[in-house]
Amino acid sequence: MKLRVALAQINPTVGDLVGNAALITKYTNDAVSASADVIVFPEMVLTGYPVEDLAMRVSFRSASKKALAQLVTALDPAIVSVVGYLDESPNGAPQNRVAVIYGSNVVATYTKRHLPNYGVFDEFRNFVPGDSSLVVRVKGVDIGIAICEDIWHSLADLAARKPGVVLVPNGSPYERNKDDVRLALVQKRAREVGAPLAYVNMIGGQDDLVFDGDTIVVDAQGTVISRAAQFEDQLLVVDIEAGTQSSQPDVVISESGTEAAGTIAPVIAQRLSDDQEIWNALVMGLRDYVAKNKFRSVVVGLSGGIDSALVAAIAVDALGAKCVNGVAMPSKYSSDHSVEDATALAASTGIHFRTVAIEPMVQSFMQSVTLKGVAAENIQARVRGTTLMGISNQEGHLVLATGNKSELAVGYSTLYGDAVGGFAPIKDIYKTDVWALARWRNEQAISRGESAPIPVRSIEKEPSAELRPDQKDSDSLPEYELLDQLLIRYVDGDEGSAALIAAGFDSALVMRVIGLVDKAEYKRRQYPPGTKVSARAFGKDRRLPMTSRWSEA
Amino acid sequence: MKLRVALAQINPTVGDLVGNAALITKYTNDAVSASADVIVFPEMVLTGYPVEDLAMRVSFRSASKKALAQLVTALDPAIVSVVGYLDESPNGAPQNRVAVIYGSNVVATYTKRHLPNYGVFDEFRNFVPGDSSLVVRVKGVDIGIAICEDIWHSLADLAARKPGVVLVPNGSPYERNKDDVRLALVQKRAREVGAPLAYVNMIGGQDDLVFDGDTIVVDAQGTVISRAAQFEDQLLVVDIEAGTQSSQPDVVISESGTEAAGTIAPVIAQRLSDDQEIWNALVMGLRDYVAKNKFRSVVVGLSGGIDSALVAAIAVDALGAKCVNGVAMPSKYSSDHSVEDATALAASTGIHFRTVAIEPMVQSFMQSVTLKGVAAENIQARVRGTTLMGISNQEGHLVLATGNKSELAVGYSTLYGDAVGGFAPIKDIYKTDVWALARWRNEQAISRGESAPIPVRSIEKEPSAELRPDQKDSDSLPEYELLDQLLIRYVDGDEGSAALIAAGFDSALVMRVIGLVDKAEYKRRQYPPGTKVSARAFGKDRRLPMTSRWSEA
Repeated sequence: MKLRVALAQINPTVGDLVGNAALITKYTNDAVSASADVIVFPEMVLTGYPVEDLAMRVSFRSASKKALAQLVTALDPAIVSVVGYLDESPNGAPQNRVAVIYGSNVVATYTKRHLPNYGVFDEFRNFVPGDSSLVVRVKGVDIGIAICEDIWHSLADLAARKPGVVLVPNGSPYERNKDDVRLALVQKRAREVGAPLAYVNMIGGQDDLVFDGDTIVVDAQGTVISRAAQFEDQLLVVDIEAGTQSSQPDVVISESGTEAAGTIAPVIAQRLSDDQEIWNALVMGLRDYVAKNKFRSVVVGLSGGIDSALVAAIAVDALGAKCVNGVAMPSKYSSDHSVEDATALAASTGIHFRTVAIEPMVQSFMQSVTLKGVAAENIQARVRGTTLMGISNQEGHLVLATGNKSELAVGYSTLYGDAVGGFAPIKDIYKTDVWALARWRNEQAISRGESAPIPVRSIEKEPSAELRPDQKDSDSLPEYELLDQLLIRYVDGDEGSAALIAAGFDSALVMRVIGLVDKAEYKRRQYPPGTKVSARAFGKDRRLPMTSRWSEA
Repeated sequence: MKLRVALAQINPTVGDLVGNAALITKYTNDAVSASADVIVFPEMVLTGYPVEDLAMRVSFRSASKKALAQLVTALDPAIVSVVGYLDESPNGAPQNRVAVIYGSNVVATYTKRHLPNYGVFDEFRNFVPGDSSLVVRVKGVDIGIAICEDIWHSLADLAARKPGVVLVPNGSPYERNKDDVRLALVQKRAREVGAPLAYVNMIGGQDDLVFDGDTIVVDAQGTVISRAAQFEDQLLVVDIEAGTQSSQPDVVISESGTEAAGTIAPVIAQRLSDDQEIWNALVMGLRDYVAKNKFRSVVVGLSGGIDSALVAAIAVDALGAKCVNGVAMPSKYSSDHSVEDATALAASTGIHFRTVAIEPMVQSFMQSVTLKGVAAENIQARVRGTTLMGISNQEGHLVLATGNKSELAVGYSTLYGDAVGGFAPIKDIYKTDVWALARWRNEQAISRGESAPIPVRSIEKEPSAELRPDQKDSDSLPEYELLDQLLIRYVDGDEGSAALIAAGFDSALVMRVIGLVDKAEYKRRQYPPGTKVSARAFGKDRRLPMTSRWSEA
């Protein structure tokens, strides 16, 4: 039997029950137009995902249930819709559930059975797991359902029921290289169950997470039948050849039916390159933080350096140059090329640009308070932060913080100075990747016949905070090529000093860097959110005490 | 058989394996001097608690195991010591465990079976649970063990083994009125097991948590035999009358033995008043954050208002007046009484005091950037924040933020302005409680024949941020008496708008306040840590998305 399945790779918004319901209705209508038998939406699409502790509010659960009840009557009764939402167990505990909707009724539900409680996930905190599988018969095809984390565990019990096809709604955040992991997993589960498997994931940004879609359909042997483009809205419609009457279904919607006319040519979107993938993640993460929080524009301090240049370029791709405001804030320690390179960036991207010299404000502080050394350096950064926040308050732009992961790791930033902002687009990008992405973005532009957005000198100059005469990052930090290699292992890999030294790093360097990372936890705690692209981002992915005497250094 | 049990209500530091081991050794020696048969330490005393994601580091687990091995040889071999630490399951997963140490050996271990994963706890993230009970025979008495969360669930399986006494190491953070809940729970479990139960809890501050001790011993009927003072280091030594040979022990240390000579007169420390309890929590939380992070002094901006006055008074009690620096930062909108009241506070408490007028810095910003309305108001707050941070950087003091829970809830604060700081002592205290605590602290002083630390006018004046002429908090917020009642239900109680309106609150007020709370999540995310005293503190107790369209308003 050819079952026509529509997979809605869409961008819901947390808490926007009305907007998400409208999106679900629209895509369901599109699926009906495409003669689909079934449409599957991502995990908790009706509430958005993750809802975090909103799950524990009785009022929010009631609203979700009410929104589902309204949606049921709004959806075309002829198609089977699989819609994720927030519901409750019989004793009133929150559950992560999908409703199978048909004929203006909820004909069955399935509750997520495996709750991730690691990394960025707190689902054991927020939900109570389900305890049973579900098989629903549609046109004779027995459809099994699993939700996201469920497929990271064995589906043996579902396999034993011999479904003809498995549908998997997901809320699976983007990480570098995760698409490869996902594909292998989807293939493994299809083979375990012995049936085609259709995996649908959402797209969009939600605070520090971004969802990349990467919706996949494989046959029972794990061969890819169809795969959606990453980071794009898409209704992926697939004809799946599936066995019939293979199981003992819990619910029968239809014992048989006519196959949809015609054949959908299967689409297998090309994978993005690693750089493009990360770029799209950063662009979507920023765009959605801005849009979903109802900002229209951003402001970023431009130092002439690579970090702020890259952030501005991401913002231009996310929002358009007209919505991006650059501010150069030179001090007496700023090199000539600082303002020149900031000006060049503004010219090449077309963003709004202004210059505010900070010397008068810095001097007024220096005259009122005794400030020397680091205290004097920090004043400059904080005057810049206050200037940006003033412009933000006056004009309504969201301030972007420009710190990268290397700086955040070792605490090479000034609290309430360069660390101010509502969002920090590159906080999960190590400095060496900042350079690589900048080069890549320029090459992309050139290959498309556009002018490169990022001034070459910003990429090539030696990094400096320019808070004192002739200061260089390398005065206080090792070269970034070396530092980043160490940080990847210590921060992302949780390797201890012994392992790092065994891997060939100089022991004094290891001790120094580890000490810096450990001591900077309090700064990271007050840093703005930013898009996670690594397997271990700073933030809820890595929860360490600020007060800790533990040190391997 | 009279078993003499020593309960070590002590203050370990997270990550300080060497220091904690020394503390354990010292208290064990004291217990030996008191002829105790057994000494029990709080949960994970060797590593400190909670270690959060440090549990997931192989190197930290190795260090914990190694520290335990060293401790075993250091402890007096004649006493049975029950010591909490971090260990691993056979397949290398982190576990929250106690070692029963005797004769320079670990003779048994018990692994926590119930892992809290709600509120501030992430133990399902950080540990793998144990799966078996433990009974150890000491001088014929069969000792059962449970760890903290274990006793929040039934001890039926331990009860079935009929231990003669139950020992319970804890890491149970302070919350208002939690002592009553604890006592009832301890009594319930003693009755369930049918044996005396000895509950030992740590004291001390750890980031936003503070532990109050409240070590309790009850007999099999639940009658209190002994109870330690709250918030104090104490070795509580108790003679417990326990049956012998009641169980089938897993390990026999000694089948019989001589009872310790003499009788320890049981101590039941008086409970603190609610105000005193909260005060001690705030004082200990601040003192330990300062000391454990190796600061020696603090600096606080003094507005003449009640919040900063209360924070200064807490700091004086925590650190002594010589370690507290007050800074008045008047602007042209500051009333005459602002500096007068700040000066009076400094005089009554004896703290260091200085005045830095902010007008020159504010003017320098106003001349460089166009700033009107709220943008101009915020500049004043940010100049103050930058001034405090400058003094901190120059002189090494930790900056204290002075925001209260009411302000944090509704977002009535300026990011990078009054919100700057390394620690925020009263962030979990609603404004009405700020006043109550200030009055209580003054009364305490007067009753002791001391001068009241907090100027009466700071308590009695109408609250104002003084960021524009004649500004009052009540211009933009409801009266705090009303606001706080609403916030307690919405923030701490998770009640929805319908419930609040049904409770009698004006619906327009409910909608307005809920809207303010929901919109301020991004500000709270960047706020410094501060001592939790309520059942629902802002921070890891309440994890809500910043990006959310959900509103009941």
